[in-house]
Amino acid sequence: MREFDLLQRVFAMNPRLPASVLVPPGDDMAVLALGGAGALLVAADSAIEGRHTPRGCDPYLIGRKAVLRNISDVAAMGGARPIATVACVTVPAGLDGAAAWRLYEGLRETAEAWNAPLVGGDVASFGADVVGAPIVASVTVLAVPVRPGARIVTRSEARAGDGVFVTGTIGGAWDPATGLGRHLDFTPRVAVANALVEQLGERLGAMIDVSDGLGRDLGHIAELSKVAIEIALARVPVPPGLDARLALGHGEDYELAFTARGEVPSVVAGVPITRIGEVRAGAPSVTVVDGLARWDAAKAGFEHDGGGVGPTRVQVGGSSEGEIRCP
Amino acid sequence: MREFDLLQRVFAMNPRLPASVLVPPGDDMAVLALGGAGALLVAADSAIEGRHTPRGCDPYLIGRKAVLRNISDVAAMGGARPIATVACVTVPAGLDGAAAWRLYEGLRETAEAWNAPLVGGDVASFGADVVGAPIVASVTVLAVPVRPGARIVTRSEARAGDGVFVTGTIGGAWDPATGLGRHLDFTPRVAVANALVEQLGERLGAMIDVSDGLGRDLGHIAELSKVAIEIALARVPVPPGLDARLALGHGEDYELAFTARGEVPSVVAGVPITRIGEVRAGAPSVTVVDGLARWDAAKAGFEHDGGGVGPTRVQVGGSSEGEIRCP
Repeated sequence: MREFDLLQRVFAMNPRLPASVLVPPGDDMAVLALGGAGALLVAADSAIEGRHTPRGCDPYLIGRKAVLRNISDVAAMGGARPIATVACVTVPAGLDGAAAWRLYEGLRETAEAWNAPLVGGDVASFGADVVGAPIVASVTVLAVPVRPGARIVTRSEARAGDGVFVTGTIGGAWDPATGLGRHLDFTPRVAVANALVEQLGERLGAMIDVSDGLGRDLGHIAELSKVAIEIALARVPVPPGLDARLALGHGEDYELAFTARGEVPSVVAGVPITRIGEVRAGAPSVTVVDGLARWDAAKAGFEHDGGGVGPTRVQVGGSSEGEIRCP
Repeated sequence: MREFDLLQRVFAMNPRLPASVLVPPGDDMAVLALGGAGALLVAADSAIEGRHTPRGCDPYLIGRKAVLRNISDVAAMGGARPIATVACVTVPAGLDGAAAWRLYEGLRETAEAWNAPLVGGDVASFGADVVGAPIVASVTVLAVPVRPGARIVTRSEARAGDGVFVTGTIGGAWDPATGLGRHLDFTPRVAVANALVEQLGERLGAMIDVSDGLGRDLGHIAELSKVAIEIALARVPVPPGLDARLALGHGEDYELAFTARGEVPSVVAGVPITRIGEVRAGAPSVTVVDGLARWDAAKAGFEHDGGGVGPTRVQVGGSSEGEIRCP
């Protein structure tokens, strides 16, 4: 998957964009200026059976996760709300009607629940020559600012002196033995993000949703904001019994990581907020303070692309690929 | 593929949409009201290696066709222009970097050429357990009216008395022996559509792009406009040597079919326009006048989903699935 790291970087750096592209690819969503009409936000993400869900699962879960991943990107932009979704689904040849229906219901019901009605889509099937073809659901979400002038928060606005925060708990979102877990039915943090924008305004720095693993995702903020981030391992909120060193690399958390100046409430929109570190001036990096040791969080990232059921430890770059392979 | 006909119909009939959805799924694009901001149009469509392009082709062609299919949907809406695209691509495990790059270039260059810059995307790979995995490029296109108040043309505005017209030639867009042909590098009829809207205004009726086969696509207009359409086989403009009966079912033409009242120029924006029939009051149907015979065009539709290299003749319903399988 090293090539895809490159490709992800390229996707994130389309150099020939018109001025109407206010936030270019490389953030959680692109932001477009729409004439007098304010801003439009757009992002796209897929859920692939066997990678983002267990193989052979209820297709409803694939449709739901495809939508939820996109809604999580809306949350990461701060003061945005989803308005619509479209989906392209590709299914195995001969998939039965009931399964196709479940997939559609997962897409439609989830989109509707998040006020992002499914307004268009395309259904196609793999050829019969593809053996072991999975269901693929590719969703695009559109969003707008929650009110005119609402703060849209990018990955590039962290400043030296900011605190570093996460919502909820990090790690353990999926069970490597079954592929099940929280990653299949999480609550995208739109309400938290909207409340943070209202409560902190310009004190809010950069924000991202945690999908690739906290270490890597903070790395994206560090790179785009050109800052050094330092986090205290002991402060990372993990589920009971989980080693925080592992939690940093798990990914699929769909929590928010953000930076902010000044006081930040410990609970926002009913969700716990934990201060885990701070932003310093320096070359882009994420350093984990682990007792007396200090190590580079990028080195602790996991790329969920090994051949087995669990994540494979690799040194990671700037990719935003965060896939899991379920058994 | 009978199930997918159903699913396509369901996709096209999401019954629980808010009033901000001005044109619901089922047309070439959905249209959303954006507050004071006017209208936003959105559609999504995929290109799948081996179905919409030949297997093993230059990945550039897959990226290009995925974008072009979507731009053709923009054309079908009349007074719209594309503003941006996003893409989700899924590629075989181990695809080499050069191939991935060609895919990306096909997407990016084509999007840019149509003033719809690629502003976001996601790259993922199939698991190594998928044998014969194709490249899948799923693209979403966003568009806006060419000017405030420009006519947006749907499939449901044909009226008894309208003439029925097509742009260019119909049929023969792909070579069943090689999978190559015009369908891999066509010019979406955006300029023609924009000019038709300016020149005909309210005299323009319904419009659609011809992707499923002219017979089926006119069927979509007949159904949504609740009219009977009658076309003269001898008038259908086909490439030299092609039987018009076959051309009606070929699909992948990416020409425009539309209805209009009064005089229509024979060339618009440099593209020939041919009057092939007329709209009558009556139950939704498409009748082909073939010498002394009259037959139902729906019966002549092809569903490009047989196991072989060529199209399979089937009785078609209201599906908007129009796939080809290349060798």
